[in-house]
Amino acid sequence: MNITEIKSEIAGDSYYKVEHPSGLTIFVYPKEGYTSSYAIFGTRYGSINTKFSVNGGDIITVPDGIAHYLEHKLFESEEGDAFVRYAKTGANANAYTSFEKTCYLFSCTDKFDESLEILLDFVQDPYFTAQTVAKEQGIIGQEIKMYDDSPDWRVMFNMLEGMYHNHPVKIDIAGTVETIAEITAEKLYEVYNVFYNLNNMVLCVAGNVTVDGVLKVADKMLKPCEKKEIKNYFETEPYEIKEPYVEQTFPVSMPLFNLGFKEKADKPLNENQLACTDILLSALASNTSTLYRKLMDSNLINSSFSYELFEGPGYCSVIFGGESRAPKQAAEMIKQYISDIKKTGIDKEDFEIARKSVYGDSVSSLNSVSAISNSIIDYEMQGNEIFTYIDAVANARLEDINARLAEMLDVNNCTLSVVKQPEEV
Amino acid sequence: MNITEIKSEIAGDSYYKVEHPSGLTIFVYPKEGYTSSYAIFGTRYGSINTKFSVNGGDIITVPDGIAHYLEHKLFESEEGDAFVRYAKTGANANAYTSFEKTCYLFSCTDKFDESLEILLDFVQDPYFTAQTVAKEQGIIGQEIKMYDDSPDWRVMFNMLEGMYHNHPVKIDIAGTVETIAEITAEKLYEVYNVFYNLNNMVLCVAGNVTVDGVLKVADKMLKPCEKKEIKNYFETEPYEIKEPYVEQTFPVSMPLFNLGFKEKADKPLNENQLACTDILLSALASNTSTLYRKLMDSNLINSSFSYELFEGPGYCSVIFGGESRAPKQAAEMIKQYISDIKKTGIDKEDFEIARKSVYGDSVSSLNSVSAISNSIIDYEMQGNEIFTYIDAVANARLEDINARLAEMLDVNNCTLSVVKQPEEV
Repeated sequence: MNITEIKSEIAGDSYYKVEHPSGLTIFVYPKEGYTSSYAIFGTRYGSINTKFSVNGGDIITVPDGIAHYLEHKLFESEEGDAFVRYAKTGANANAYTSFEKTCYLFSCTDKFDESLEILLDFVQDPYFTAQTVAKEQGIIGQEIKMYDDSPDWRVMFNMLEGMYHNHPVKIDIAGTVETIAEITAEKLYEVYNVFYNLNNMVLCVAGNVTVDGVLKVADKMLKPCEKKEIKNYFETEPYEIKEPYVEQTFPVSMPLFNLGFKEKADKPLNENQLACTDILLSALASNTSTLYRKLMDSNLINSSFSYELFEGPGYCSVIFGGESRAPKQAAEMIKQYISDIKKTGIDKEDFEIARKSVYGDSVSSLNSVSAISNSIIDYEMQGNEIFTYIDAVANARLEDINARLAEMLDVNNCTLSVVKQPEEV
Repeated sequence: MNITEIKSEIAGDSYYKVEHPSGLTIFVYPKEGYTSSYAIFGTRYGSINTKFSVNGGDIITVPDGIAHYLEHKLFESEEGDAFVRYAKTGANANAYTSFEKTCYLFSCTDKFDESLEILLDFVQDPYFTAQTVAKEQGIIGQEIKMYDDSPDWRVMFNMLEGMYHNHPVKIDIAGTVETIAEITAEKLYEVYNVFYNLNNMVLCVAGNVTVDGVLKVADKMLKPCEKKEIKNYFETEPYEIKEPYVEQTFPVSMPLFNLGFKEKADKPLNENQLACTDILLSALASNTSTLYRKLMDSNLINSSFSYELFEGPGYCSVIFGGESRAPKQAAEMIKQYISDIKKTGIDKEDFEIARKSVYGDSVSSLNSVSAISNSIIDYEMQGNEIFTYIDAVANARLEDINARLAEMLDVNNCTLSVVKQPEEV
């Protein structure tokens, strides 16, 4: 068993990466002085993984929304619901499905070993029948409709539909009422058996824990898996956006917008690129930036304004969004500002404030056992490491930020999505 | 039955207030075009209500944390768990206890009537036995310890302990392991029978609903209650803070601080005072303010910096807080800035940006059925009304804001709380 210690001079902390014989990669981040612990167990399987092959076989296509459906159903076993088992240990448990992963997690202060056993057990123990699968259709159908009522959710997916021609990131994580109707117990077992292979999964634990303690439970509970070669397929996605403007009417009191810049996505960003991008976006659009102030002064945004680097396998974009009385004007001001700053570069003082802010935020996230575990699993799944990222933020130079700016944020390759009240007649 | 329509010219919306014969106050806010709905059922009973009398009787004292304990136990009935019943209708349910109220809520898109029946049924149907009460002690004990590990939670309660001599707002909402050990089924029934009287409660529903639809369920499910006169007692609280500085060591990577200004709290703020205070605080300390920029430029805060008006029965304070490498310097800069601005008053331009920002945020909250319901119940429980508040924001004048500033934020009456890493020897 290969155990590596990963240390940070800056944070004064260290954690351990374990290559477990079962195939699972395990991270343990002991936090001395804490009484609580947090564990997250995830697989590289999200809503976009609907076309794949195993060990060089044929390409298999499964219904949209199946990863999320599987997450819901995995809590059930022949003996009952995992939440009921957690209730006995007092742990607080949850799960989520994103575009590229599915994760199961809990936090607790007592009976950590018992809760970790439950987590490792139910995720490794699928149980679906025609009845239990059918029962879920109504519940997930409601969840889908609930998101349809969320202006934030709609404005984002409309933007993704405007930006991407083919990439499945534009499809709702939960699928549609039509696609989930195609899901059967057999299909759930099929995707489960491919993606819930321990070699494709990561366990991350932080808090009042020790490496030995975690490994004792892991040795007992993990069922060795034969490694499979999983390939995911996505249709070729051109660099160019599909539509520059998309609009939906919806009874909102204040219109919403998302302005997305489609970026090159040939390979995932490394820690350095991520650090530079985060600093760049903070300098450009955080709430201390000149742009934010200009937008506020012009009454074009309110404090709901935010920005995001939105990146994963085969897709990458930068999204600015929020509420606005005049979304088109807000988008124009943002594009004009970006065009201007591309000529002059980021101001030295603005860069320093942004670097310190991103640095402070990333170091202070190490105060929370949940933030630690969530970050480590996120970074690991895109092939990065958190302390390397923090070092990159600390050492970033203005030249690097301006170099990043030069290759990003093409004002001729962006989509504006607006959700607004129907016009009165 | 008294039904009042409450209209907003500004928002172009209206909702209905119903005085139901059972004693319950019901609000219905139909949102046309939405498919989801949200219901919240709350009682004026929170963690601070531990000394009270009923119908002029003796003062009764109950253990700290009992309101929160009751919230946990109320989900159980002789027939099983309310969450299991909700699972059949597909609703997403939850509950919370704050300083001054306990609320039970759900959201859904289908089977709204059935879910509302479940909500009204289980909250009106207490069921506790010695066994079920004892079982919960472990779970709530873990929850309490979990909060002890949260630097954000610690830094706030340490500040409240430094600020308040007697008021129970300084006591953790969940109580302590010792106080919850005193809780019995009899005590739970006792507080239940006092505070879960429909005359002391509010139901608020928003979304894809009609007044008639909600009233049909209400008529069927609500059990008329005799009105009781409930009086809550709090020891006299002096205006002066108890301690200007409190510190706790805890293994955090970045120190945290809360700087709390103790305010007069003789009566709750009305809509006008709230509007002026919200605009004042936004102009002073929001992320577009001069103070925020100064703190950022000096590397004294990161983007976790925030501010809050923290107000309820018998307490009121303004809290600034976040992470800082040098909390004492950050606090000094904030106090110095407030002293200076008290002399000059808020700048006209800063006021305009703040007013527009608070206005935009409050109007845009009407886009969400959960935000609508949560706001209406919050405002109602402190005797206010949301549209009146929005009008007050729209009509606020700089003079009113400066008048508010003159009577608040006494730099000689504040407590700084710090949580930081133990010093290395």
